Amino acid sequence: MIKKVAITGGTHGNELTGVYLVKKWQKEPDLVRRSSFETLTELMNLQAIQEVRRYIDQDLNRSFDLRDLENENLQNHEAKLAKVINHRLGKKGSSRPNVDFIVDLHSTTANMGLSIVVSNEHPMTWRAIAYLSMKEPRLKVYRWAGDVENAFVDSIAPSGFAIEVGAVPQGVLRADLFLATEGLVYHLLDFIEQENRGSVLSLPESIEVYEHEALVDYPRDENGEIIAMVHPTRQDRDFAVIEQGDPLFLGLDGEVIYYQGDEVRYTLFVNEAAYYEKGFAMTLTHKVTQKIPH
Amino acid sequence: MIKKVAITGGTHGNELTGVYLVKKWQKEPDLVRRSSFETLTELMNLQAIQEVRRYIDQDLNRSFDLRDLENENLQNHEAKLAKVINHRLGKKGSSRPNVDFIVDLHSTTANMGLSIVVSNEHPMTWRAIAYLSMKEPRLKVYRWAGDVENAFVDSIAPSGFAIEVGAVPQGVLRADLFLATEGLVYHLLDFIEQENRGSVLSLPESIEVYEHEALVDYPRDENGEIIAMVHPTRQDRDFAVIEQGDPLFLGLDGEVIYYQGDEVRYTLFVNEAAYYEKGFAMTLTHKVTQKIPH
Repeated sequence: MIKKVAITGGTHGNELTGVYLVKKWQKEPDLVRRSSFETLTELMNLQAIQEVRRYIDQDLNRSFDLRDLENENLQNHEAKLAKVINHRLGKKGSSRPNVDFIVDLHSTTANMGLSIVVSNEHPMTWRAIAYLSMKEPRLKVYRWAGDVENAFVDSIAPSGFAIEVGAVPQGVLRADLFLATEGLVYHLLDFIEQENRGSVLSLPESIEVYEHEALVDYPRDENGEIIAMVHPTRQDRDFAVIEQGDPLFLGLDGEVIYYQGDEVRYTLFVNEAAYYEKGFAMTLTHKVTQKIPH
Repeated sequence: MIKKVAITGGTHGNELTGVYLVKKWQKEPDLVRRSSFETLTELMNLQAIQEVRRYIDQDLNRSFDLRDLENENLQNHEAKLAKVINHRLGKKGSSRPNVDFIVDLHSTTANMGLSIVVSNEHPMTWRAIAYLSMKEPRLKVYRWAGDVENAFVDSIAPSGFAIEVGAVPQGVLRADLFLATEGLVYHLLDFIEQENRGSVLSLPESIEVYEHEALVDYPRDENGEIIAMVHPTRQDRDFAVIEQGDPLFLGLDGEVIYYQGDEVRYTLFVNEAAYYEKGFAMTLTHKVTQKIPH
């Protein structure tokens, strides 16, 4: 039984879709109210939202590692904020959490369309994703592992995921992606309402998931400076196949760099602005079939 | 006779096309060297480039008003930087300027394609634009007047303009727009070389120009908060016609706001990230025919 759901926006202050959806719902809470559970709507990083920046001191969505939450020496803006949020919406790992399900709203400059980033194995998480996939055929699912693991906002509740939509620049509100994200959240709330009531839902037996494989960085010089761009034929090709010999990067000097991997992969988060500093130009994934628990 | 040309990038630190083109040319100066004039390549706002931000204290590309350049009380980062740049690449209004022509490289989150933003009436400016229009049929020309006038980087030299390409998110380098901008700059240098040598160029007699008419802000509440988004049917429609009754904005609450103007206009800079804080969602223009001086 889900008793409390948190819809969180503005975890990254320059991802406006979630910021403005939460503002909308805080004005019109009836839109996200359902009878069998309580819905919280939260703007996460108010200072970063104010400054239209991803973060002030460190990435809030990499700040929920359990050891970091318990480390009193970490006292910068986001480290402190993570502790406050964990107290309110966690606590992470608790057997009596304050919130049962977190959906964290993100956007990306990559052409990810409508996607879910999941790093949680709770049956409710996967049943919810299966329901959304049924309602929104464009939805794609990425099982994340990457630069910092198990440190996302949604990791502090037993179940949940991030919704990731794009392409949209940082600091821009795009109506089409706003409406699509809004629709996904309403489907999610309807799903939880039906689960709580014990409705028999005919969910798919399995869904297709893009499973994380590797991070690929931009070619850089000895000072860490980027010396190549995502190749024009790879730009915007998220959830698209890449095979040995496909152009991957184009050097600033014009040299083409080809993909050398033996295996067929799918590229995600291609040329995302926020990942230049993290050191990756895209992620490589393979497709797996994920069974949906019944 | 043009003796010195400056190619400037990184006037806005999060517009990477110009930043990486200038870095390329500083490594390979032969690419922009021509026999009849000297070419300077300049990274403008190093601290903003380092921080991948548009600016530190104020917009550098609004900091070249003559009165501001002469006002010793203005001492924030960009106000001081503008004075230094004006000393090196100006001086603005001087009869013996250090640089004859400035091309300032920009990018935009709006779908502006390949465009020129001009606010200069020098014959050389317009002949250069005519030449580029001939070489690059996709090129569009916008005669700017807007929030702050005659304060652009290129205003400190007798002739020049900004190249503005999009759509590309802030903090992202897109290969296609990098290559297109690079091509435009080579055409410009070739043009100046031919002019200097007295070659007879068969330029068009006139070109089409989008002339600035008005700024349109997002609908806002009493606190200045945005309460509507660019309507999905207007998003990405730069250099596109707008007529009375066309959907203009979509309220966060779902209400459609229609364009009320009597005259047919063309929308530019639709939903540019950097203009949220400046208070405009797009600019309205009308088309004029610009004669090219011979």
